[in-house]
This record gives sequence, structure tokens and C-alpha cells, in this order.
Amino acid sequence: MLPSLLALLLLPSPLLGTPAHADEGMWLPEQLRDHAERLDELGLQLPLDQLSDPEQAPLGAIVSLGFCSASFVSPDGLIATNHHCVAGYLQQLSSAEENRAREGYLAPSRDQELSAGPGARLWIVEEISDVTDQVVGKLPKRLSDKQREARIDRAEKEIVAACEATPDTRCRVATMYSGLEYKLLRHKELRDVRVVYAPHERVGDYGGEIDNWMWPRHSGDFSLLRAYVAPDGQSADYSPDNVPYRPPHWLPIDPTGAQDGELVMVAGFPGRTSRYARAESLRFARDVEYPDSIEVADQSLAILRDEAGKSDEAAARLAAPIGWIENGRKYRQGMLDNFRRSRVVERVEAREQALRDWIAADRVRTRIYGPVLDELHARHEERSQRWAQDVLHGRLLSYVDLLGVADTAVRLATERQKPDLERDAGYQQRDEDRIAARFARMDKSLWLPADRRVLAMLLARHAALPADQRIPALDAFVAAHGGADATVDLLFQAPALADAAARQALLETDLAGLKASQDPWIQLALALEAWDAPRRDEADERAGAGLRLGPQYMQALLGSRPGAVYPDADSTLRVTFGQVKGYQPRDGVWHLPHTTVAGVVEKAGDDPFDAPDKVLAAAARSPQSRWADPDLGDVPVDFLATLDTTGGNSGSATINAKGELVGLIFDGNYEAMSADWLFDDDLTRSIHVDVRYILWMLDDVEGAPAKWILDELLGE
Amino acid sequence: MLPSLLALLLLPSPLLGTPAHADEGMWLPEQLRDHAERLDELGLQLPLDQLSDPEQAPLGAIVSLGFCSASFVSPDGLIATNHHCVAGYLQQLSSAEENRAREGYLAPSRDQELSAGPGARLWIVEEISDVTDQVVGKLPKRLSDKQREARIDRAEKEIVAACEATPDTRCRVATMYSGLEYKLLRHKELRDVRVVYAPHERVGDYGGEIDNWMWPRHSGDFSLLRAYVAPDGQSADYSPDNVPYRPPHWLPIDPTGAQDGELVMVAGFPGRTSRYARAESLRFARDVEYPDSIEVADQSLAILRDEAGKSDEAAARLAAPIGWIENGRKYRQGMLDNFRRSRVVERVEAREQALRDWIAADRVRTRIYGPVLDELHARHEERSQRWAQDVLHGRLLSYVDLLGVADTAVRLATERQKPDLERDAGYQQRDEDRIAARFARMDKSLWLPADRRVLAMLLARHAALPADQRIPALDAFVAAHGGADATVDLLFQAPALADAAARQALLETDLAGLKASQDPWIQLALALEAWDAPRRDEADERAGAGLRLGPQYMQALLGSRPGAVYPDADSTLRVTFGQVKGYQPRDGVWHLPHTTVAGVVEKAGDDPFDAPDKVLAAAARSPQSRWADPDLGDVPVDFLATLDTTGGNSGSATINAKGELVGLIFDGNYEAMSADWLFDDDLTRSIHVDVRYILWMLDDVEGAPAKWILDELLGE
Repeated sequence: MLPSLLALLLLPSPLLGTPAHADEGMWLPEQLRDHAERLDELGLQLPLDQLSDPEQAPLGAIVSLGFCSASFVSPDGLIATNHHCVAGYLQQLSSAEENRAREGYLAPSRDQELSAGPGARLWIVEEISDVTDQVVGKLPKRLSDKQREARIDRAEKEIVAACEATPDTRCRVATMYSGLEYKLLRHKELRDVRVVYAPHERVGDYGGEIDNWMWPRHSGDFSLLRAYVAPDGQSADYSPDNVPYRPPHWLPIDPTGAQDGELVMVAGFPGRTSRYARAESLRFARDVEYPDSIEVADQSLAILRDEAGKSDEAAARLAAPIGWIENGRKYRQGMLDNFRRSRVVERVEAREQALRDWIAADRVRTRIYGPVLDELHARHEERSQRWAQDVLHGRLLSYVDLLGVADTAVRLATERQKPDLERDAGYQQRDEDRIAARFARMDKSLWLPADRRVLAMLLARHAALPADQRIPALDAFVAAHGGADATVDLLFQAPALADAAARQALLETDLAGLKASQDPWIQLALALEAWDAPRRDEADERAGAGLRLGPQYMQALLGSRPGAVYPDADSTLRVTFGQVKGYQPRDGVWHLPHTTVAGVVEKAGDDPFDAPDKVLAAAARSPQSRWADPDLGDVPVDFLATLDTTGGNSGSATINAKGELVGLIFDGNYEAMSADWLFDDDLTRSIHVDVRYILWMLDDVEGAPAKWILDELLGE
Repeated sequence: MLPSLLALLLLPSPLLGTPAHADEGMWLPEQLRDHAERLDELGLQLPLDQLSDPEQAPLGAIVSLGFCSASFVSPDGLIATNHHCVAGYLQQLSSAEENRAREGYLAPSRDQELSAGPGARLWIVEEISDVTDQVVGKLPKRLSDKQREARIDRAEKEIVAACEATPDTRCRVATMYSGLEYKLLRHKELRDVRVVYAPHERVGDYGGEIDNWMWPRHSGDFSLLRAYVAPDGQSADYSPDNVPYRPPHWLPIDPTGAQDGELVMVAGFPGRTSRYARAESLRFARDVEYPDSIEVADQSLAILRDEAGKSDEAAARLAAPIGWIENGRKYRQGMLDNFRRSRVVERVEAREQALRDWIAADRVRTRIYGPVLDELHARHEERSQRWAQDVLHGRLLSYVDLLGVADTAVRLATERQKPDLERDAGYQQRDEDRIAARFARMDKSLWLPADRRVLAMLLARHAALPADQRIPALDAFVAAHGGADATVDLLFQAPALADAAARQALLETDLAGLKASQDPWIQLALALEAWDAPRRDEADERAGAGLRLGPQYMQALLGSRPGAVYPDADSTLRVTFGQVKGYQPRDGVWHLPHTTVAGVVEKAGDDPFDAPDKVLAAAARSPQSRWADPDLGDVPVDFLATLDTTGGNSGSATINAKGELVGLIFDGNYEAMSADWLFDDDLTRSIHVDVRYILWMLDDVEGAPAKWILDELLGE
């Protein structure tokens, strides 16, 4: 039944030509065919069959870095992505002598491109196929929720395992429309990724956290990488003998950029949206989750900033986490501002009322979907009750590095006792390299004085929770060690896990060995795991309920709405199309769609607006540059478009009507932060670095040493 | 020679059709005739002869409140001006029971309009005539600077006295083009001014100091007054028997407002500009005067805010001075920002270089103007030396109320020993009523605890000056009274002048009586006056030099420049024309030319954005209002235009191509604060309240009780 309903939903509907939100939609490539009329109207110059095929250009040139999107931009495997997507690589490539995270890096020649590190990966989409039938087609009608979850989980793992039997292949089953549909994504994995060019931090992240999410923006958030393979063309770890990968498809550049009103498209891997979320989830986010996150962010920032002020080393190690927390805080505050200003909850409530009216209008619908809504509400209430301890547990593991290490080791040792296919996701054989790499990297970021105070803060927050919302295992551990202060003292008294070798050794230790350990971090992790393991079992059961209720809810929701629909973002390849366009952020103000180099000079001053001298020097002549836009009278820096994007889209190629690269998306705008919940046609904009700024940086700012890269980009 | 040169300068030049700065110019009414082509192009629908005649409509409807501009808007003497222009009246009309400064006032009927107080004045321009020949035409060639100043001063006073021989007439000789031309302005003076309608403070001053100078703006900065006369039509003090004045001209309203791009004009009394100032004056302002003012403002604000926090009464009395100081501080900071961003000094330097080149290109010019430039430079240097003690002396008299009172009494008693015509300006018989009114008003604003700390702060600043820049009389007074602390203690120990009756009595005391007084304030004022009087004599000499050099400098400056020129603003009637138009405040942003009621709601929140409930209630229906703009889809609030205006223009009528009222100007924009020095076509905008917001407030917000006023405005 499900596939046929879905086929119906995906058929072109009479409303397609004039959808309410013209530019909303993170479309699966195949769905682009449903938008022929609108794409034609916007000026598409590519055959739709070509555009909608991930195995042809332009989509065939789109790749994933795991956490970011990217694209091939030369036949020799040159890759364009965001500066902020390679910041981690640059951090690893920095030393006291050469601060590449700050100064950037320009390879003088191809043989001096720098390895992005053993953990760097590039995934090239090779095939997207429907596996709905294999995952849920043969499920018996009567299954407990736990059984359902286990069966689906097993089916997915089997499909992934079979897929990954091919060497250098990474596969994933994506759940779409809350489980109405499942897709298998097969990727070729390359393991030798090198840094070709990264601009100075105050180009790539000009304006820092102050300008983050903001318009007008003047960030040159781009970098260039290159993929390498063994001389025989196979995927290989880094080796000086490797040769540039020759991608089957790559994007040519349009050095005239994109004009106001022009059709642009973004292809990439958007991470996660909640466009079909229920109003009570939004209300809970607004009233509980975001305010709580903001409070914890403020407490953490106070600690980290204080510690960062104590030494240069502390400042260097804490810069990144401070940035992340500031970013997250701004995001959540922006959400709350958006929720209020754009009446997001109220609009979702109205949509939900329409759904309830649609259900109530029909006896059969009422009988089928009424109980679904009731159960979803009951499960929401249950989750709300559990939420405080869940979120605190999560923060302990992610904010306190050594507890995260100990917990990972305990989980991995536990899962290793099972056959690989039965292990929990994230703890399978395929994940072990990644975990080891994470443990190794920690040497560059760990800062115990800050972690210590953050742990004390989290323990205080835990102690302040009502008794029935606390974690009994944590209460017991703290009590057994003489209270919170003594517990913190004990944990941070010369912790063994601060040493990288000790962390790696931990990964080799089996569960019995861990249980015998006297290390208090291991003991705390074991205690928390003993509490959490049965909860995860319950979570499996809840997940099973979700897999039962989700498709029914989506079925009702989609049935009640006219027009084409797209699945929520899930890090699978999507395409969004729209126009270069400004917006009205508030009464009396219009945000113009382009910024220019003149604006870089206008903003120049104190950190984070301390633009490099060579940029300011070149800016004095930018109106005369060959990359200047004739209408703007200057070199464009960033531009706005009406595209529907989210985190994970970072680094995605922005292409024009002919499939040529005109920019790279790197952000969304503050006024539409809530777009992950609800797209707002008037306010939602994507922010892109203009390809002409990239060319200007290489040509007018970097000059002769970058000529070989500029020539490669221009195909000269 | 001068008049003929001037006639030449004022002739239409070939460049007039395409001046570099299309909308720069605070034109004398008669000069409008030189802009026929441009006004025609912009769509003027009035005969130029009518528009340029101050004795016909629309200019005949323009009046002055002394410190603000205003205009008649009904045949029954109804007057429109800014809310901030009547704030002083509302303060006087407020009591503990009725806070009209906060709540505003709506007269239920014509007989309940409230007297704006005995000091309120309305000046109606009756004639503007050229008196250059009378002032400087018969001056002997050889005169000392002091003689020149005295002769010109005497001539001006004689002209004013003759003019004011007519009852209820106020006259003034305005010096234009630094003394190239003199104009006599004759005004009819009305003395019974009443408040008809003032909106709530959070309409009239919505956004307070935060939004001051800013765009987007949502201030309903308007109020309505009415002029009254005796039943026989003569000017009269307030009396219940008086009747509404029937002005010969008044402005009809265009309830469709002004659209983007439409021709608008402002007629009013701009106060002061320095468009022909020399670069070293700008540099001195930028490097010395503004930074010093900002520092004193910060010190004063710290004191006043602290005192205001101590009691409700202190807060009420200090609210106005805190507002003025904040305003002045923001103005000066804005100047500094503007100077830097718009490279104001550099541009004036370039213009000055062009002048020097023009002079150097000709032997005769070099011989005549070379020494003028040299002497102006020497006089600037001399002024720079004197500046610190001058400004400190001025601050003592204006910031410390009781010292200002004592000084005024001493000055007045001194001047009264001379024939009226020889008295210093500001201390003639004609000024005595105004002085008495000021002394009386002080009862509502005087707050000794703040004055005391401000005096101590100023004495400390004085003590910190280099010895040769200090005021010897002040040093001596402080030393004689045991130092700064003891002096302040003595002055503020139950000061007699805190009593209104004592202040009035002081005005009746002759100089001998003052010299015999034991009051330390009088003694201090006498000491300062003994120091200042000979300096004023020197100042007269310097003024004479200015009257000799100024015309020569202007002659050179105007000779070196093509195109029409206008005199600096000097509170005489001027007209500026241009278009409704937005602007680009910075890269990537466009300020739209209109704001709407939706923006009032967007901003609504904490003080100063605490919009009254009745406004927010009406705002819910504003898109459906009959005053809504069809294109904007809402009622407009404020709009931007390219007009050339400055302080004193506040309340000026904004009129359309047909001479109808479409708004009231009330502010300039932050990005062009330096327009008083240099007009910037791209950035300089005037900010106006839209007539449709006025109509909406009366109709949709105030409703039935305001219908009689709405009907009068609409001529219904």
C-alpha cells in the first residue's frame, strides 16, 4: 500500500505550477522532473533528464566530505568547498611555527598540496536506489514495536553490508517521509584528500561569530581541495605516489557570476530538517529546549572565556569550542526570535488544525488516524518527562572530553561482544578507525582546566533537577566519592586518559579489562552505561513505535495537503532551486542580494574584522578588477538566493541555469533560522560566496603564486 | 562691488541643469526661480512665481516657533509641527495628576485647547528685504576691525528698531554669505498659542534616543497647535476672549501622501550650517571639539543618570537634560563616524586645494586673496589657543543653572546702563520678557544635587587645564574660598536663587545692588564677568575682522566654483526640494523610503518602544485603514527624502508638487550627520512623518473624540 500511495503523492499535481512557496523544497534528484514548468520559467538551460540524474553532470560532480558538501571543479580532481568545512584539516596542519588555521595555505605547486590527514574522506555518490520493499515490504502485520525496530534495523544493516562488500564503498539506508520510503545510497570513498588553497581565516571567516548568520556578509568562505587515488585508480590512503583522481564529472565555472533574479540551484547533502514536525514539538523546543540550551551555553561560555584568558595555549585550544557554543547559542536565540516574529508555532498549529479538520471530515480517516494522533501526543508527553536527564547525560558525554572517551570505550567493548551486524550503529567495525582518529585528535584540543569546571557546572545542574528527573547512577557515583567537589577532584587528579597512548590502549581493552580498571573515568562511564543500556532498549521500542506511527502520520499529513512534497533533509543528495534575491529583514529595510569588496573595507577594523593587508591593498583597485560586476561597479563577495538549504549543505555548489558553478553556499540568514521547521518564502535566504570573489582572491590578492590554480579553475 | 558680484553669482549658470549635487541647497525663496528646469523635471505643478513668493501660498503658510518651524493647516489657524517642538509646552502643562508630556493631550473641543504658556510665540514672515546697502554700503574704506564691528552692529540694530516700531512685529537682520549680503526679516508675532492635539510620548517620540537619527524610523513626531488673537485681530497675550487667528494662507492636505520618487519640498527655518567652512575648522572639530564634547557628555551623563536613579522627582526633572546630552553625544559621535566613513575632511581639503589653485592661477587673485587666507589661518590658530577656556566658561554658565541665572542678571544689569541700541544682543529691552520667562520656568527643571556634582566635575576639568589656558578669575575665586570642595559646598549651601521669587527680584536689581550682594553665586558671576568683559571687547574686534575677511573669502570661494550657490542656514526662511528616496547606508543594505505601522508592531516592547495599547490595537487593522497605501499594503509612518535640511527645520511642512502638505520633517539620518559641513548626495536624507500617519492617529487610533480635528484638517 505504501509505495502506491507515495507514487500518487509524487505525481505532478494541478497545483505544481503555482505552489504556495515557490522556492521551498529540498528535492530528491528524480523529483526535479515534477518541476519542469517552474524551472523553464526560471530559465533552465539544461535537459531535465540530465539535471535529475545523479550519474550525469552537474549532479555527478557533487561529493560529500561527511559533514559538508563539495564539488569537483576540474578534470584533475580539484574540489571546491567552504573554508569552514576544512577548518578542522587546517587545525591539524597547524603548528607553533606555521599557523595555517589562521594564515591559510597556498600550495606553491601541485606536489606541495598538503594531506588533510588520515581521517579525511570524500564520498562520491554512485547510486541512489529504492529499497523500501526490502526494508519494510516483507514485515509481518503483527509485530511488537521492539520487534519492528529490530527487523528494520537488521534489514538496513544487511543491505548496507551487502552494498559495502564492494571495496572502497560506503553505503547508507536513508529513511524518508518518516518511514514511508527507504533509499539506499552507495558512495565511492576516497581517502587521500589534500589541501590546495585555503584563504586567511579573516577572509574565510571574515566577521567571525559577529557576522555569523548575518547579512550583509563579506565572508570568503571557500577553500580548494584535491582528491588523490593510487596510480591504478583505486582508493588508497595517503601516499606520495598517489595521483590526482580524475572524476567522471566536474563543474565548469561561470566567471560572470549570478545576477539579481537569475536562476540558481544548490546540490548537496542537507543534514536535517523537521518540516513535518508536530506543533507540540515546536512548542517544547520554544518553551523548554532552546531556553535550557541558551542557559547552559551562557554558563559554559563564562567558564571557557575565563579559562581562555589565562594563557595563549588555553586561548588556542578553547577558541574552537567557544566558537561552536557561541554559534549554537546564537542559533537558538535566533530560533526564539524567529518563532516570535514569524509566528512559527502559530502557523504550524494552523496547519495541524487543517490536518485535524481533514481527518475529522471523513469517518474512515477518523478511525485510522485519530488513534495515531492520540498515541503521538502520549509519546510526546512521555519524552518531555524523560528529556531533562537525557539532555544532561548527552552533555556530560559530549562536553567533558574524557568522559566521552571512557564512554566510547565502554560502548565499543560492549558491542564488540556481538556479531558485527548486531552492533549498535556507530560502534561497528566500520566505525573503529573513525573513533581511533577522534581519540588521537583530542591531543590538540583537550584542555582539562575548562573541562573540570564544565563538569562541576553540569553536576550542579543535575543536582538541581527534581529527584525523579535525576540520573540515579550519577547520584550514587557522586555520593560514593564524597560529593560533587570531591568527585571532580578525583576525576581530574592527573587523569591517565589525558594521554593519547592511554586512550588508544583503551580501545584495545575488552569489557572485562575495563570493568577491572581502577580509573575513575572508566568507573563513571561503566556506572552511567549500566543505567543507560536498559534505557536504550526502551529507546529501541520507542523507535519501533516511531516506525509504526511515523508513516501513518506522514500519510495523513501528505493526504491532507495538495502539491508536491519532498522528504525532510537526511544528509542525502538533494537539489533546491530558486533565484538570486534580496529580502526585507524588517520594516523599512531591504537587504540587497550582493555585497562587494567595498563592504569588506567598510567593515575592516578590530578582530574579527581584521582583514589581511593584502586583501585591503587589492581592494583599493577592486572596481577596476576583471572580476568586477559592471552593474555593482565592484567585485561581488557574497550573494543571497531563495534556495531551501540547511546545515550539511555547507560547501554545496551553487550552479546556474547551464549547470556552471557560480558560488558556494555557506550559510542561512538570521531572520529565517526557523526555516528548519517552517520555510518562509519572504524571509528564507541562503548565503553564498560569489565565484568572482574566489577568482579575485586567487588573481588579484594572491597573484602569481596562485596562477596555476586560477588557470586550472578557468580551464586554461 | 559686492552687490554686483553677488548678482553675477546668482544668475542661472549653464551648469544649473545638471548640478553635481542635484538636491543640495537651502534656497532663499527668490532663488527657486533659478531652478525652473530641475523643478519642472521633478514635476512641479505650481507657477514658480507663486512658489518663490513668501507672501503667497505655500510659503505664506510657513511660520516659526522660534526654535522650530511650523505651518498653518486650516483657515482657522490650526498649526502642524513636530511633537518634539511642543515637548516643552507639554512639560509645562503637566502635573502630578496629568502627565501630558507622557500621555499627550487631545482637546475635546476648540474651547478646551490649552495655552502653551506665556512664553510661547509664533512668528509669521511678513517681508524679506535686502538691506545690504544700509548695513555695509556706506562704510568708510578705512576702519579698524573694532570700528567695523561697531558700525555694522549699530546699523543692524537701527534697522531692527525701526522695523519693530510697528506693534507686534519682530525683526532680524540676517548676515548671508559671511557678510556679502544682509537681509531684513520682518515677522508678525502672535503670543497666544494653544495645544490642540499632541499624541502619546511613545507615538511622538517612539524609539526615544535609541531610534533618534536612525532609519528605519517609526516616530509619529507631530502635534497640532492653534494661534489665537484678540477679537479685533491684533496680537494679544492669552485670554479666554481671544479668537482663532485666520491666516492669509494655509496648506491643504494631500491624504494620498508622497510616493517613492515623487517631488517633495520643505519650507522652514533651518538653523545653522557650515557648508563653506575651511578645512582646518573641520579638522579642529574632528580632533579636538567633538572628542572633548563626548568626554564631557559621558561624565555628565554618569552624574545625571546616577542622580535620576535616586528618586522619581529627580528622574522627572533630569529626564530632559539627560535626553539633550544623549542627543548631543550621539550627534558628535555620529559626526566622527561620518567624518571617517565619508572622508569629509579629505573632501573639504580637496575643495580647498581647488580654491588655492584658482587663486594661484591669477596674479590679481593671488594679491587680493592670498593675504586673506593667511590671516584666516592665523586667526584660526589664535582661536585654537583660546578654545579650552572659552568652552569651559560656556559650560559653567549653561550646565550650572544658578550660575547661568547670576551671570544673566549681572550681564543684564550691566547692559541696562547703556542706551538700548548699544546693549549687547540678547540683553536688550526686547529680550527681558524672555529672560524672565526662563527664570520662572526653571522651577520645574532645577535639580541641585545634579548641578552640584556637575559643577565639581567642571571645576576639576578646569584645574586640569594647563595654567595658560585656565580662567584666572575662577582660579582666584576657588582659592579664596578654600579650594574646589569648599567652594562647591558654599555655593550649594541653601542657595537663595533656587527660589523663583529671588530670581525674579534679581532681575530688578541694578549693578550696584548686585555688587553689594553677599550671595556667592552673584560674586562668582561678577568675578567671571570681570574676566570675560574685556575678552568680549576683543571678540568684537575679532568679529570685525570676520566681517572684513568673511566676504572676501566667500567671494573667492564662490568665484572659484561654478553653479548656483545658497547662503549657509541662519534660521531664515529657506526652501529645499528633492524626491522621496531611500539610500544605501552600507554595502548590501538599502533603506526603503517608507516605514509602515507593521514596523511599529515589530519594534514594540520595552521602553522606549512601549507603544500605547490603543496604537497596537488599531495596528491590527491598519492594512484595511482608509489611510493605508495601496502599494505598501499598510499605513505609512515615516518617509525619507533627498532634501537638504538641518536643525531648526524641525516641524517644517513637507509639501508636494501642488503645494499640499504630505508630511512634516523631523530628523536627518545618522549616516549623513556631517551634512551640516558637507552635503552627500548618496547618503544625506531627511526623515519625515507621513501625513497619512497623522490622519490614521486621529481617525483610527483616537477615533470619535478627534473627529472634529480630523474634519478641520481635511477641510470637511
